[in-house]
Amino acid sequence: MKKMEDKILAEGEILSGGVLKVGSFLNQQIDTVFMKEIGEEIASLYKDDEITKILTIEASGIPIAVSAGFAMNLPVVYAKKNKSSNISGDVYSTVVQSFTHGNKNNVIVNKEFISPDDRILIVDDFLAHGSALTGLIEIVEMAGATVVGCVAAIEKGFQMGGDRLREKGYRIESLAIIEEMDDTEIVFREQ
Amino acid sequence: MKKMEDKILAEGEILSGGVLKVGSFLNQQIDTVFMKEIGEEIASLYKDDEITKILTIEASGIPIAVSAGFAMNLPVVYAKKNKSSNISGDVYSTVVQSFTHGNKNNVIVNKEFISPDDRILIVDDFLAHGSALTGLIEIVEMAGATVVGCVAAIEKGFQMGGDRLREKGYRIESLAIIEEMDDTEIVFREQ
Repeated sequence: MKKMEDKILAEGEILSGGVLKVGSFLNQQIDTVFMKEIGEEIASLYKDDEITKILTIEASGIPIAVSAGFAMNLPVVYAKKNKSSNISGDVYSTVVQSFTHGNKNNVIVNKEFISPDDRILIVDDFLAHGSALTGLIEIVEMAGATVVGCVAAIEKGFQMGGDRLREKGYRIESLAIIEEMDDTEIVFREQ
Repeated sequence: MKKMEDKILAEGEILSGGVLKVGSFLNQQIDTVFMKEIGEEIASLYKDDEITKILTIEASGIPIAVSAGFAMNLPVVYAKKNKSSNISGDVYSTVVQSFTHGNKNNVIVNKEFISPDDRILIVDDFLAHGSALTGLIEIVEMAGATVVGCVAAIEKGFQMGGDRLREKGYRIESLAIIEEMDDTEIVFREQ
């Protein structure tokens, strides 16, 4: 999505440690005009795939999932993060490591919200090492449902999570893939 | 909003301790068709108020804020919750107590996302004791911006937070106000 690359170049900020800050339009402030276009782009990528439900993870995945859900007229479910080790039996849960925040979270979805006949599209804002997407894929598969594919708004290609999931056979679409990034330059992967 | 009351009666679940579970349509699974109507209702309530930005708090306020932002063509900002006591100078922050979760969180908004000339609409999913809304109001006022009003999808009238804020002069609109609630019955306030 050319406009995602343009937005990153115009408004993204590179911090130390390979962190790309896009809080001005994607994950603290939301440019709703652009967010609508993101939803429509996701709908168009998966228009022939008979998706029944969109799954994301709180908090920054929610605006993207809601926008895609609006464009596709589909329900959205978001996984919750929880530090407690006390997980009840009525949820699917897995553990996800955050490299950005240097911590681990239980990721939890109530069992009633995914059924075996669901065809799930997973969306998130960032795809770097792939831990969040991998956790969400695990949860869908625990429920016996089908992972039709995943969308990340921004993939950090150099952190390899996306390519590892593609090698396993998952369909991973990213609206922009950053191949290389340093203090002065961002290079996108041709798509 | 009659449809909010109907949804609560049809799909809400009352748990012990006065907890109303609406995870099937509002705050874990999102009924996007209904969520669009929520956004349009909020837009219509504040259509003459020259709002410049919508503010909410992660995570369950985000779908409502995004839907209202879509309907009003306005940017959305969400406050982040953070347990750390180490807050940097480039954010507005306050402390919010959660009665549901029995904990306290710092609530943080990056200073660059609220300016003194902003006219802010605050939205959230629940209004009970009013601590989250009060925290968000404080943040807007720290920034020197104007709180035009607040919207809660569901207000628990018997927990008084909404009425306390109204007495202070804030415009608080709730799409449904629960006046009384026990294991078998929910009574709504006439609006």
